[in-house]
Amino acid sequence: MKTQVAIIGAGPSGLLLGQLLHNAGIDTVIIERQTPEYVLGRIRAGVLEQGMVDLLRQAGVNRRMDAEGLVHGGFELAFDGRRVHIDLKTLTGGKSVMIYGQTEVTRDLMAAREAAGARTIYAADNVRPHGMKTDAPWLTYEKDGQTHRLDCDYIAGCDGFHGVARQSIPAESLKVFERVYPFGWLGILADTPPVSEELVYANHERGFALCSMRSPTRTRYYVQVPADEKVEDWSDARFWDELKARLPDSLARNLVTGPSIEKSIAPLRSFVVEPMQYGRMFLVGDAAHIVPPTGAKGLNLAASDVSTLFDILRKVYREGRSELLEQYSRICLRRVWKAERFSWWMTSILHRFPDTDAFSQRLQQTELEYFVGSEAGRRTIAENYVGLPYEAIE
Amino acid sequence: MKTQVAIIGAGPSGLLLGQLLHNAGIDTVIIERQTPEYVLGRIRAGVLEQGMVDLLRQAGVNRRMDAEGLVHGGFELAFDGRRVHIDLKTLTGGKSVMIYGQTEVTRDLMAAREAAGARTIYAADNVRPHGMKTDAPWLTYEKDGQTHRLDCDYIAGCDGFHGVARQSIPAESLKVFERVYPFGWLGILADTPPVSEELVYANHERGFALCSMRSPTRTRYYVQVPADEKVEDWSDARFWDELKARLPDSLARNLVTGPSIEKSIAPLRSFVVEPMQYGRMFLVGDAAHIVPPTGAKGLNLAASDVSTLFDILRKVYREGRSELLEQYSRICLRRVWKAERFSWWMTSILHRFPDTDAFSQRLQQTELEYFVGSEAGRRTIAENYVGLPYEAIE
Repeated sequence: MKTQVAIIGAGPSGLLLGQLLHNAGIDTVIIERQTPEYVLGRIRAGVLEQGMVDLLRQAGVNRRMDAEGLVHGGFELAFDGRRVHIDLKTLTGGKSVMIYGQTEVTRDLMAAREAAGARTIYAADNVRPHGMKTDAPWLTYEKDGQTHRLDCDYIAGCDGFHGVARQSIPAESLKVFERVYPFGWLGILADTPPVSEELVYANHERGFALCSMRSPTRTRYYVQVPADEKVEDWSDARFWDELKARLPDSLARNLVTGPSIEKSIAPLRSFVVEPMQYGRMFLVGDAAHIVPPTGAKGLNLAASDVSTLFDILRKVYREGRSELLEQYSRICLRRVWKAERFSWWMTSILHRFPDTDAFSQRLQQTELEYFVGSEAGRRTIAENYVGLPYEAIE
Repeated sequence: MKTQVAIIGAGPSGLLLGQLLHNAGIDTVIIERQTPEYVLGRIRAGVLEQGMVDLLRQAGVNRRMDAEGLVHGGFELAFDGRRVHIDLKTLTGGKSVMIYGQTEVTRDLMAAREAAGARTIYAADNVRPHGMKTDAPWLTYEKDGQTHRLDCDYIAGCDGFHGVARQSIPAESLKVFERVYPFGWLGILADTPPVSEELVYANHERGFALCSMRSPTRTRYYVQVPADEKVEDWSDARFWDELKARLPDSLARNLVTGPSIEKSIAPLRSFVVEPMQYGRMFLVGDAAHIVPPTGAKGLNLAASDVSTLFDILRKVYREGRSELLEQYSRICLRRVWKAERFSWWMTSILHRFPDTDAFSQRLQQTELEYFVGSEAGRRTIAENYVGLPYEAIE
């Protein structure tokens, strides 16, 4: 089998890249280890930056998002008994974010790909990239007891942090930057109305909490827990009690609880590899970098990688601009590091760190007070939250 | 002997408080452990915020400062081979800083106090505050072989970090917040023309460097050194070589070197005690808090404490507003912590930290790039550098 761009991974970044390339007349095949049902079962992010919304519109996969997504012009920071509104629209000159679950984005992209007749191989075992440093790379995978080969011009590694793409690059060719935080997020999904119209990020002495949502009838709430916490130890009742204890009274008394649909603990990690490419294989999104979820940058950062790779590949195929290929990593990393910084900062100012000293604790409180109290400070928060601009490929 | 406000310490904060109180018709005596010559021999800060400049004008001690001080509308950040100008005036709506050495401020204040005929006791040994929790506190000190007593209404502890005022407060009445940085600043004073019209803060892989000045013919330069470095190991030649190595070429090649007038190493420390008062004794400036010198906040923070204490004492004596006395600490600490935050932040982004990990190092670089690249980010730097507003006492 042969294609122009072989994409490893049928999550939102692989599917979005595939759709953009397909629309531009560039042939793709996506190879995915899991089934479509498994992919759709992963509960992930739900806040889309303007840049990602625009990219989904560019891909023509926006009908349901525009009908059902919730446009948020702000969010709240709760700390020290206060609730402070960060007015994204005013602070950024009109920008906002869109609340629309990653699961829904994936579903829409899957449907669009199927409608376009583009090829996706699901449940492919033992996917392996080969010849990445040659002009003719290929993938191998196993399915139905047979080994298959997919020849291509380029490989896009959209297979996440645990995927094979990054792991196929010799370790000595990558520089790793990493921080593991001493806590995780215990999250639940519930069919209850949101406690607030907008997201609320709360810094409380018992730990961080986040009130988020997927729709007007489906909520996503999180509480910070120790890194070694077990989800089995958290009944729904315990979760709701803990969440209420961390929210300002004005929110806690209006919180509607209900049975959880999903409950899980996610570790918090910052991770980047440099460079984000190896020969003709390009790493996209979580395959190259992880952010802690505070600030909702993970999916959005994958989208900006997709945008960069798509723009480059289009210019390579249409205009023969193959010199651009070498710029992919450098262009992506500029934006990646800014998002890493913001995600680290939001994590640092909102969580309780075990064994922190009195000076650090007071510094955290002051950092929050200064940044929300200063108009310039609020603008730094807002411009990062709605997403820094994508870099144009000239 | 009797006075209304007994002031411990004849440094710039004690003298400035004394001058303001004297002008308001409130009697003061200043007790200083050292001689005037010793006090003037201490080489310290040289960047005055607008608020401190205004306060010196309010005290009537501004003639020479206004004639000889250098108004700076900006400063430079040098990193990664770049030089970025932070345009304070544009970013803050017209504010600037004044370059005028702490030694000169002290000299002017001493002259003004002498001209006013206000009492200062120099070379006073074994100064001790007493009865701070009573309505009639007093100081004792020894001079010329005799023990003296100074009765007063209030005591102002303006005697610095190592002074007796804070140390006379029972340890259980104070909460201490502290961070010691793993490096110091090696500074020299030289009669050479400044390498640049404005200050330059440089982040270099060999460590931080600062190009500062006291006048158009006197410069003050610093390089970051390990905390245990000995000044004896630094010849002038070694200092100049190290400084040049840390500056962008465009500056290094224009650096005029010369013999040092003074050379010393200062440790870097963040320190705050809460509260900043104990009964009728009020801690002012370094007696209550220390900042690392990055960002030049130490003297300026002392000035805002002086302003707050002066405003309160004036209202107490003139309007009987004794309830304000209890607010001194809370009012000061709000501004103190913001300056602590900024000083910590400037220190964090500009110095090289030993044993830092790759992620932290890249984060530092990104923090610098983001804040200087974003107009909102530059505004946060500028508004802190020129000084956050003083809080009005209502």
